[in-house]
Amino acid sequence: MFSLTVRDHFMIAHSFKGATFGPAQALHGATYVVDVEFLRPELDADGLVVDIGLASDVLKETLGRYNYKNLDEMAEFEGANTTTEFMAKTIFDRLAERVAAGDLGAGAAGLSRLKVTLGESHVAWASYEGALPLDGA
Amino acid sequence: MFSLTVRDHFMIAHSFKGATFGPAQALHGATYVVDVEFLRPELDADGLVVDIGLASDVLKETLGRYNYKNLDEMAEFEGANTTTEFMAKTIFDRLAERVAAGDLGAGAAGLSRLKVTLGESHVAWASYEGALPLDGA
Amino acid sequence: MFSLTVRDHFMIAHSFKGATFGPAQALHGATYVVDVEFLRPELDADGLVVDIGLASDVLKETLGRYNYKNLDEMAEFEGANTTTEFMAKTIFDRLAERVAAGDLGAGAAGLSRLKVTLGESHVAWASYEGALPLDGA
Amino acid sequence: MFSLTVRDHFMIAHSFKGATFGPAQALHGATYVVDVEFLRPELDADGLVVDIGLASDVLKETLGRYNYKNLDEMAEFEGANTTTEFMAKTIFDRLAERVAAGDLGAGAAGLSRLKVTLGESHVAWASYEGALPLDGA
Amino acid sequence: MFSLTVRDHFMIAHSFKGATFGPAQALHGATYVVDVEFLRPELDADGLVVDIGLASDVLKETLGRYNYKNLDEMAEFEGANTTTEFMAKTIFDRLAERVAAGDLGAGAAGLSRLKVTLGESHVAWASYEGALPLDGA
Amino acid sequence: MFSLTVRDHFMIAHSFKGATFGPAQALHGATYVVDVEFLRPELDADGLVVDIGLASDVLKETLGRYNYKNLDEMAEFEGANTTTEFMAKTIFDRLAERVAAGDLGAGAAGLSRLKVTLGESHVAWASYEGALPLDGA
Repeated sequence: MFSLTVRDHFMIAHSFKGATFGPAQALHGATYVVDVEFLRPELDADGLVVDIGLASDVLKETLGRYNYKNLDEMAEFEGANTTTEFMAKTIFDRLAERVAAGDLGAGAAGLSRLKVTLGESHVAWASYEGALPLDGA
Repeated sequence: MFSLTVRDHFMIAHSFKGATFGPAQALHGATYVVDVEFLRPELDADGLVVDIGLASDVLKETLGRYNYKNLDEMAEFEGANTTTEFMAKTIFDRLAERVAAGDLGAGAAGLSRLKVTLGESHVAWASYEGALPLDGA
Repeated sequence: MFSLTVRDHFMIAHSFKGATFGPAQALHGATYVVDVEFLRPELDADGLVVDIGLASDVLKETLGRYNYKNLDEMAEFEGANTTTEFMAKTIFDRLAERVAAGDLGAGAAGLSRLKVTLGESHVAWASYEGALPLDGA
Repeated sequence: MFSLTVRDHFMIAHSFKGATFGPAQALHGATYVVDVEFLRPELDADGLVVDIGLASDVLKETLGRYNYKNLDEMAEFEGANTTTEFMAKTIFDRLAERVAAGDLGAGAAGLSRLKVTLGESHVAWASYEGALPLDGA
Repeated sequence: MFSLTVRDHFMIAHSFKGATFGPAQALHGATYVVDVEFLRPELDADGLVVDIGLASDVLKETLGRYNYKNLDEMAEFEGANTTTEFMAKTIFDRLAERVAAGDLGAGAAGLSRLKVTLGESHVAWASYEGALPLDGA
Repeated sequence: MFSLTVRDHFMIAHSFKGATFGPAQALHGATYVVDVEFLRPELDADGLVVDIGLASDVLKETLGRYNYKNLDEMAEFEGANTTTEFMAKTIFDRLAERVAAGDLGAGAAGLSRLKVTLGESHVAWASYEGALPLDGA
C-alpha cells in the first residue's frame, strides 16, 4: 500500500458540554495541526498517490471553512461536541467529498483510503481513518 | 476507525544478555517517550475515543511503576531482555488491564484496539499493537 | 552559560483588534506549546540550573491561570492584543515574579536570564527573553 | 503486532516528466528522511523485532546507493518519475531483498511486513508498506 | 528581546567543489526547511514583532527564487559553494533587503536582528544571524 | 554569526545524590539526544562553518566514551551529580579539546563559540554554551 501525507493547520475557539470535560466546558480554543494521509494500492500514471499541489490546495480550502472561527456558532456543529476526534472525522468527510467530486484530479479516483490526524498539542492527537469512496457514492 | 493518542515518558536503567547486544550488554539506560494510541470504530456519547484526562493519569501511573528504576532488579523482568519492543508490550499489557478494570471510564468499554510506541532516541522507536479486550477477559 | 528548558502547553480563545489581523479579528483560539528556558552562568550546589520538578510545577500553575480561558474576557488583558509574542512576555513576567518570590527554590537565586517561547503551530512561534531579577526587584 | 523503526536520510537530485509536476519538471533535489518499520507478530529469542545494529547498517548501505546522486542519470530509473512515493517503494524492494538474503540476521526470518516512509519536508511524506517475504521468494 | 519565527521550505540541486566535500562533489540535492526569526526589543503598536502574513508571503517569494532550481546554474552563485551555511546567509541578505524596502510593513522598521536557519536533515542544520538594518542602509 | 549544528545521541545509567532529586536518587538512566552547534563570524575558504563529516565523527567518538555506561562507575564523575546540564558542559569540554587539538580540521581554527544541548525527553533539555578557544589554550 502506498501513501502520501500533507500537513497544514487551523485555529478555532469552542467549548464542550458534559461534566467529563471539566474546565474545558468553558470557551477556549485550539490549534489543530492536520496531517492528511491518502492511500492506494498502486501509483497513478505519473508515479503519484495524488497530485500534491491539488491535495495541499484542497486541504487549505477545507480547513479555511473552520479557520479563525468559533465552532460553537456554526450551524453544522449544533448539538455536537467538537472534540479533536470529532473534528478529524469532520475533515475526513469534507475531503472525501472533494475526492468524489474529482477536485483532486482524475488520478485520485484510484485512492482507496484516507486518514486525517489532528494534533492538538505536543502530547495529544486524534485521527479518523476510513475507506473511499464514500458510502453511496 | 477513530483513535486518540497521548504522550508521556519514563527513564530507566537496564542491561541486555546475549552477544547480539554488543556494548549494550553493559548496564546503561534510556529515556522512553511513550505514545499510547486508543482505537475504536465509533465515538462514545460525549464524542470521545476516551476521556483524555483519565487516559493521561492512568498512563502516568503505569509508567510510574518503572520510572527511575533499574529494570534488571525487578522480579517481573527476571530472565527477560527488556528491549524497547519488549517494554512496549509490557506497557500495552498493563494498560489493557486498566481498561478492562474500568479505570479509563465506562465509555472505554468501546475501545477495540491499543497501540503503544516507545521512542528510545530520535532515530529509533518500537511498538506493540493488539486487540482489546484481553484474551480471556 | 548553562540553560535548562521545560515544555508544557495551554489552550485559549481570543480575538484581535486592527485591520492588520484580517480574519483573525474574529473570535478563534490557539494551543500554545510553551518552552521555558532558565539560564545562569554557574550551576548550583546540586549541579542544577533549577529544580526541574519545581520548574515544571510552577510553569503548570502559571499556565493554569490562562488555560481553557477566553482571553478577551480577562481584565488583565483589557485593551491589549493577546498575540503570541505578547503572551510570551506575559508568561515571562509571571514566571519572573515566581522566581523572585523564591518559589523555584533557593538555588534559583542564581538564575540570570529567562526565555519563554510559545509555539502556535508547526510553522510559527514567538518568544520573549530578558534578564532576571526583574527591574526594581 | 510488534514493530521496530530506524531512521536515516539521503540527498539526491532529480527532475520529473509531465505537466502535473509544474516547476518540479526542472532539475532540483531533495533530502529524504527515511523511516523503516520492521513488523512481526512475535519477538525473536533475544526479545527483538530485528537486530537494530544490522538494520541500521543495511539501511545506510541501501541509501548509499542513491545518496549524493542525480537519479535522472541512474539506469534503474530510466523512464520513471522518481517521486517520493516511488522512491519509498524502491527502498522497500531493496530492503526486502536484503531481508530475504539473510543480511539482517537469522532472527529476521520472522519478519512479516515492512513499511518505508520518506519525509521530503516538514509538510509532506510518503510511504510504501507490504508483506514479507517477497512474492516468489 | 522579542522574536517571531516562521517556517517554510525549498528544494534544490547543487554540487560542491573541493576535496573536503568527498561524495558531495557530485550533483545531488537537498530540501531546506527554513526558519526565519525576526527580533526586536519592543512590540509595535498592534502588539506584534512583524505582520506574520506579510512575513510568510515575503519568505515564500524569497525561497521561490531558488525553489526547484539547480543552484550550479544560477549566475549569482558562480564560483561559490552553496553550502547550507552559505545559503542561510543568502536568504538572510535577501530578507534584509525586503525589510529595508518596507515590504514587511511600516511596523517592521523596528526590527533589530534577523536569524535564518536552514535544516538539511533531521541531524544537521545551519544558520546566519545578524543585525538590521543592512550596513549602509 | 554563522552556525552549524549536528545531532547524535547516547544512552547511560546514573543516579543522583541529594534530597532535591527525590526518586531520581535511585539508579535509573537516560537517552541524551545531543545537538552540537559550532559558531564563527566568517565562513572558511570552502564556505563552511566546519567539516560536517569530521564534526559528526568527532561527536560520535566523544559520545562513545559515555555511551552504554553507568556514569556512577566512571572515575571522572566521582563526587559529581551527572545532571543533564552537567553532562552538557562535560561534552562541551571534550569537544573544545578536540577543536583545540586540530581534530576538526585546520578550518576549525576559526570557530569562536560552541553550544551543546542534551535533550533528555520531549519536555526537557539542557545546554552549555561558551567561547573557544579554551581558557589557557
